[in-house]
Amino acid sequence: MQLRDKTAVVGIGATEFSKNSGRSELQLAAEAVLAALTDAGLTPEDVDGLCTYTADNNTEAEVARCIGAPNLTFFSQIGFGGGGACGPLHQAMLAVATGVADVVVCYRALNERSGYRFGQAFSPVVPGSNEALATYHTFHGLMTGAAMFALLIRRYMDETGATPEDFGHVAVASRKYASTNPNAFFYGKPITMADYLNSRMISDPIRLLDCCQESDGGVAVVVTSTERAKDLRQKPALIRAAAQGSAYQQIQVTNYYTQGAIEFKETALVARQLYQQAHLDPGDIGAAIIYDHFIPTVLMSLEAYGFCKPGEGKDFVKNANLEIGGELPLNTHGGQVGEAYIHGMNGIAEAVRQIRGTAVNQVSNLENILVTAGSGIPTGGVILASA
Amino acid sequence: MQLRDKTAVVGIGATEFSKNSGRSELQLAAEAVLAALTDAGLTPEDVDGLCTYTADNNTEAEVARCIGAPNLTFFSQIGFGGGGACGPLHQAMLAVATGVADVVVCYRALNERSGYRFGQAFSPVVPGSNEALATYHTFHGLMTGAAMFALLIRRYMDETGATPEDFGHVAVASRKYASTNPNAFFYGKPITMADYLNSRMISDPIRLLDCCQESDGGVAVVVTSTERAKDLRQKPALIRAAAQGSAYQQIQVTNYYTQGAIEFKETALVARQLYQQAHLDPGDIGAAIIYDHFIPTVLMSLEAYGFCKPGEGKDFVKNANLEIGGELPLNTHGGQVGEAYIHGMNGIAEAVRQIRGTAVNQVSNLENILVTAGSGIPTGGVILASA
Repeated sequence: MQLRDKTAVVGIGATEFSKNSGRSELQLAAEAVLAALTDAGLTPEDVDGLCTYTADNNTEAEVARCIGAPNLTFFSQIGFGGGGACGPLHQAMLAVATGVADVVVCYRALNERSGYRFGQAFSPVVPGSNEALATYHTFHGLMTGAAMFALLIRRYMDETGATPEDFGHVAVASRKYASTNPNAFFYGKPITMADYLNSRMISDPIRLLDCCQESDGGVAVVVTSTERAKDLRQKPALIRAAAQGSAYQQIQVTNYYTQGAIEFKETALVARQLYQQAHLDPGDIGAAIIYDHFIPTVLMSLEAYGFCKPGEGKDFVKNANLEIGGELPLNTHGGQVGEAYIHGMNGIAEAVRQIRGTAVNQVSNLENILVTAGSGIPTGGVILASA
Repeated sequence: MQLRDKTAVVGIGATEFSKNSGRSELQLAAEAVLAALTDAGLTPEDVDGLCTYTADNNTEAEVARCIGAPNLTFFSQIGFGGGGACGPLHQAMLAVATGVADVVVCYRALNERSGYRFGQAFSPVVPGSNEALATYHTFHGLMTGAAMFALLIRRYMDETGATPEDFGHVAVASRKYASTNPNAFFYGKPITMADYLNSRMISDPIRLLDCCQESDGGVAVVVTSTERAKDLRQKPALIRAAAQGSAYQQIQVTNYYTQGAIEFKETALVARQLYQQAHLDPGDIGAAIIYDHFIPTVLMSLEAYGFCKPGEGKDFVKNANLEIGGELPLNTHGGQVGEAYIHGMNGIAEAVRQIRGTAVNQVSNLENILVTAGSGIPTGGVILASA
């Protein structure tokens, strides 16, 4: 079935981003969903689908109840933490394109700083398959995301010659964007390369300024048909393509023992599907929101998406290439390192603003923008486009 | 989009059903998936989609890795416990019908007796929205599924005049089927109405013999296009319709305070969609697998699906109406009270056998069979059909 441009994001909404929201995750979710509907010119009565992450603590039924939505005919969840960042949008596209639902809202809300902290060490206690897998590495001390990614990034450095300075280009560019974004936690707080290089080591080679934030907040986006979008308030951001991917012998992050461990194969799988579905190639992408749990992975994602050759991410990110006017303006909201960590959903909202032409750091003449979900794990991606 | 008969279930597989599987849930899942693929005449190399319940502890990526599946382009989870029993099949239908995936396997595996027990009292400890909702009733002592459903069923009895004997008809018929099913835990163990009425009270008016079992085991079903099904080993069970539903102001089970609390509105919502999508009405359904967490809810589901009028479930289940040759042969595998509690996925497998003509308790000349997911919660349903 032809899915290209059949559906569109017609509304975006968010709470403030903070370190202590002072209210429940359910309230954050409801506020974000209501804001997104208002933005679209829709009401809760229009909603018949809700999608989120398995990591979200707010069920679709509870969010529907809190906003006063009528019957739902579609609801689903996508797993794998931030790898699920684009999956709900993929779900919404399928539901709307097939007519199973008319208006699907995707949401993510979390008190990830005040309620719990993804950055802290954890030890698996539940006998699930993920936890069983984790027992292979937790007793080596790999008990945080940073520790798990550190080994992968060290290998990337060894194999490609990438240096801390190379990663610093992404960190500095992201903070520059954040510094002009009033909604970003680091608004007004740019950093220099020296700041980056002097930031303390968290898990060598990952520095403090490589790490996304721990944040409280909620973000939601509204999907409907491109046909219905014509009657709504905002310029639609067409879903030109959306896809999911999990690679052969996929292991979450800790896949150290294989050849080609530094290739994000699941990301490359998503990329192939996106370009095919969109009838585009990397040269057609005018800007990108690349998932930045840890800054160095951005280089690996850029390679997997074909913006440069394998191992050449370190060259691609230089020369202000990621800034407005550069080859690929990247994470123009400041990224999750600079704006907030809303598990990738805030990146989708930024991509919608870029397509609308309303971003604080606006890319001019933008036709297609790429958004990616978490890397190193089963993942997804979406290309949004101007009508 | 026309979804009717576009996709089909082409393979089913299961482990043995037991009270102590002696192996991990991941192994159960992998065994069931491999068995289903073998049944279909397919191999792990053919799989590009996996769907399950959020309640399942085995991620799609881990199951893919264990069976040796190549890249996945589709994976998703459906929440709400047994309410998600038909949701994965709905997901598979959408993925295959749109071409996002070619072969999607839906699975559910659990050590629900030996590993943990759904029937035991629980108190919410995680600050999710469901748990917040649970705080309204747990301190009244409603800490088990049986306790939560008991109030609903008492009200149903008061409003409709249904008696324990009426429920007993379903329990006795289910056990009769189980007694001839070698895979059922209660194989060779029929019960009489006296057995039912004398079984001890668990949570008045719910008796021991009203309750589904606590079981260990895994079940999987394989979905592909009806076109591709023509080249495969088994007679396909066409997905004539599949749907999800969550009703206005949906509360999980404990929705005691509203008018019409004994109508399963979310089930009725699914029914309307199924009949519309299938171009059928209740009179066209030749047999049904109705989710039986607790026997009395079967009467409420029969009403919501329009097999009889509201409050007339008690009359419908009499006169051997649920047996082979009756008006609606029901739960011919023995139900989850008689075969095993694999969270509804074993009911889908039984429906496929009925369409193939290979069930132990076979309904003759069967064209359409209904399968339903858990009731009283966001739910789903599917109509499978002969080609």
